[in-house]
Amino acid sequence: MSLEKLRAEVLEANLELVRRGLVLYTFGNASGRDAASGLVVIKPSGVPYERLRAEDLVVVDLEGRVVEGTLRPSSDLPTHLALYRAYPQIGGVAHTHSRAATAFAQARREIPCLGTTHADYFHGPVPVTRLLSPEEVRDDYEARTGEAIVERLGEEDPLQRPGILVAGHGPFTWGRSAMEAAHHAVILEELAEIAWRTLALNPAAGPLPPYLLEKHFFRKHGPGAYYGQPDEERR
Amino acid sequence: MSLEKLRAEVLEANLELVRRGLVLYTFGNASGRDAASGLVVIKPSGVPYERLRAEDLVVVDLEGRVVEGTLRPSSDLPTHLALYRAYPQIGGVAHTHSRAATAFAQARREIPCLGTTHADYFHGPVPVTRLLSPEEVRDDYEARTGEAIVERLGEEDPLQRPGILVAGHGPFTWGRSAMEAAHHAVILEELAEIAWRTLALNPAAGPLPPYLLEKHFFRKHGPGAYYGQPDEERR
Amino acid sequence: MSLEKLRAEVLEANLELVRRGLVLYTFGNASGRDAASGLVVIKPSGVPYERLRAEDLVVVDLEGRVVEGTLRPSSDLPTHLALYRAYPQIGGVAHTHSRAATAFAQARREIPCLGTTHADYFHGPVPVTRLLSPEEVRDDYEARTGEAIVERLGEEDPLQRPGILVAGHGPFTWGRSAMEAAHHAVILEELAEIAWRTLALNPAAGPLPPYLLEKHFFRKHGPGAYYGQPDEERR
Amino acid sequence: MSLEKLRAEVLEANLELVRRGLVLYTFGNASGRDAASGLVVIKPSGVPYERLRAEDLVVVDLEGRVVEGTLRPSSDLPTHLALYRAYPQIGGVAHTHSRAATAFAQARREIPCLGTTHADYFHGPVPVTRLLSPEEVRDDYEARTGEAIVERLGEEDPLQRPGILVAGHGPFTWGRSAMEAAHHAVILEELAEIAWRTLALNPAAGPLPPYLLEKHFFRKHGPGAYYGQPDEERR
Repeated sequence: MSLEKLRAEVLEANLELVRRGLVLYTFGNASGRDAASGLVVIKPSGVPYERLRAEDLVVVDLEGRVVEGTLRPSSDLPTHLALYRAYPQIGGVAHTHSRAATAFAQARREIPCLGTTHADYFHGPVPVTRLLSPEEVRDDYEARTGEAIVERLGEEDPLQRPGILVAGHGPFTWGRSAMEAAHHAVILEELAEIAWRTLALNPAAGPLPPYLLEKHFFRKHGPGAYYGQPDEERR
Repeated sequence: MSLEKLRAEVLEANLELVRRGLVLYTFGNASGRDAASGLVVIKPSGVPYERLRAEDLVVVDLEGRVVEGTLRPSSDLPTHLALYRAYPQIGGVAHTHSRAATAFAQARREIPCLGTTHADYFHGPVPVTRLLSPEEVRDDYEARTGEAIVERLGEEDPLQRPGILVAGHGPFTWGRSAMEAAHHAVILEELAEIAWRTLALNPAAGPLPPYLLEKHFFRKHGPGAYYGQPDEERR
Repeated sequence: MSLEKLRAEVLEANLELVRRGLVLYTFGNASGRDAASGLVVIKPSGVPYERLRAEDLVVVDLEGRVVEGTLRPSSDLPTHLALYRAYPQIGGVAHTHSRAATAFAQARREIPCLGTTHADYFHGPVPVTRLLSPEEVRDDYEARTGEAIVERLGEEDPLQRPGILVAGHGPFTWGRSAMEAAHHAVILEELAEIAWRTLALNPAAGPLPPYLLEKHFFRKHGPGAYYGQPDEERR
Repeated sequence: MSLEKLRAEVLEANLELVRRGLVLYTFGNASGRDAASGLVVIKPSGVPYERLRAEDLVVVDLEGRVVEGTLRPSSDLPTHLALYRAYPQIGGVAHTHSRAATAFAQARREIPCLGTTHADYFHGPVPVTRLLSPEEVRDDYEARTGEAIVERLGEEDPLQRPGILVAGHGPFTWGRSAMEAAHHAVILEELAEIAWRTLALNPAAGPLPPYLLEKHFFRKHGPGAYYGQPDEERR
């Protein structure tokens, strides 16, 4: 994929967040990585989505040095880069303050896997990071946020757990591409919305039994998947 | 009704789920049965609604053998077929992960008949199926799901209870036609939405007295019905 | 106002319920009374709003005899008529199953006057009727519903309390005209929506002090009102 | 900025409240102050937004005397003026009855700073005013409301706490301009919406640690800010 095409996809991924009602004003951001060069394309900081054009996007390297573009990149860029550096298999990252997911992040509660909608996308609960220490917040806050995400995921395959809640902040999601990362942001918001209603109806609601979780996750993902059409690019 | 017309109706039923905000991306599916041939028309698996056309729909027989169409049918097809086989009087089935109904399914709480809106459509609570066993999930999961629905309904006339919550999963609805099944999916979501707010306001809210439930259900359904116009096709 | 103009207004009042998201499919109905003749114009039963035309509306007298129109009037007509007969000062009635107000009706909780938004329109809580007895439900149910509303309002001026919750059913509202009745249905839904969130945040939330309730109600209504423009028709 | 331009901006600020779903019918109002003349432009009382034009706006001096315009100003004008008189640094005020923020005002609970979304805009909780006394309500109620806001803010810089909840009533917000005040009304509603879900998920949810609150507030505001583009007018 050329950098030109990646710009177009990253623009679309950002606009998908708007179309799905996940962002207010300039909240949120999505980025994508070019597999060939390793460069990352990201939304500029504080630019309203309605006048965002592909040429406004900023191209940076994995250390955050601007390679193309005249605008400042999103202030959350170092968080995105920490994820790209840790996980070669991901090609896109998205961040929003979407309502239901942010409420879980603020309540510092993980989202348990309460149903098959969740199990279709997440192989287990959506975890919450620990709060950063005063030192971490002072010293390169956004990069430390990314590192706390990686720390929390541990040995987990990030494509089997394509999102997390940053404590007191909001969700970050990722995927094989920028569009998939945005898609996962939308799904995560829906899961959170259904989960909080479930917990309101039954505070003791338990997670799905493991055999049902496995069934749903692997019905959509991996070699035995039979959801969707065999020739389509899975997402 | 020709198979051509049935395709058009099943397409419309699927799009109705979208128009009413019940589905996200490729979630959900609706099908319809041809009374003459007994064949079933269903949405293909994982195809986005915005590019779904009547010719993409898949025609299968009651054992799930593809009769027309080149795409894979919805992975929930065996659940639909179990319902068609058990109930000759139904002509359509719909499945969504709509928010409020799915929350009840995940909380594994039936939706009590708390008001006349509910009694206008359901002759009693909306029940929840039991969880499937590990063996049932392993062995032909989607067909077992349909059988668990039939098991839960028991001797009930499915047209007096046109929907159910599959535990940990979400709602299935049905009706005399695909459009009626979709219509019931919309109604069920609305009932669930009002019910959860009712239970939040009054956790001890009791069901409608039976004489009021009967009055409302039979004011709209059956020989003594006086809701709507006498010459309209009831739904 | 000619009957022709009244038909147009009643059509608009019905469509206002749709535009504001208060009704689903054929739920709900609004009517208006012609001051000169005393005739009432009401929505026909079970006709979808999107194909409702002024000529489909049904004209009846105060005993419910059809004077003009070929369609069946709304099945709730006898409830509307009981209100028109009891209160000469009202010129419009509306009924919906709007979510938040219906949840209070199902929870059988009155909506306390928790804030100034409420006090701007209702001079006190929104009351709930008693449940009808089996005999009342059997014998002319819809008229008995109207009588239970009148019984609950008692000596209250209906224009100072322009709506009520029918227990287990949903809201009825009224006003000097059909449009005002529809407007009050919209306001009541908003008040109910804010009230349930208020009660979730503070289950012990008390009503507004009487001096503040009075201030707001009479700032908008009656001879000393100073809200709005002096020459506008108040609503 | 000419008075003509200010009228256009105040019109836009009022329409922004509509576009973002914060107002119903004629609820709400926004005003702006002309820095040069000190005159204030405000929405007229009770005029529907859909037919509001720039020339309908009313121009008043700081004592509320109408300088231009034939319509009555918003009945909340004296509240706006009390804020303009107390705080020379503000150039706009907005008032709505938006759902989530009004629920907190009715519950008489401040909105704690539960997350970074909040800390990006408010340097601490969103406070609630005390209830006015019967005498204050009787005697120049709307001006007393403004004074109670100023009393509650105390020594606080109003631009670091750009909104408040009036007990039993609803939110007032402000900013350097009318558009910024409207923008803050939108943000405050979003914060309130996320906060009530957070408190439902975790009634014991504590505020963000001070070092994280400071980080987020000052990342967007003040000399060290690095959010957005360096040359843009901050808001």
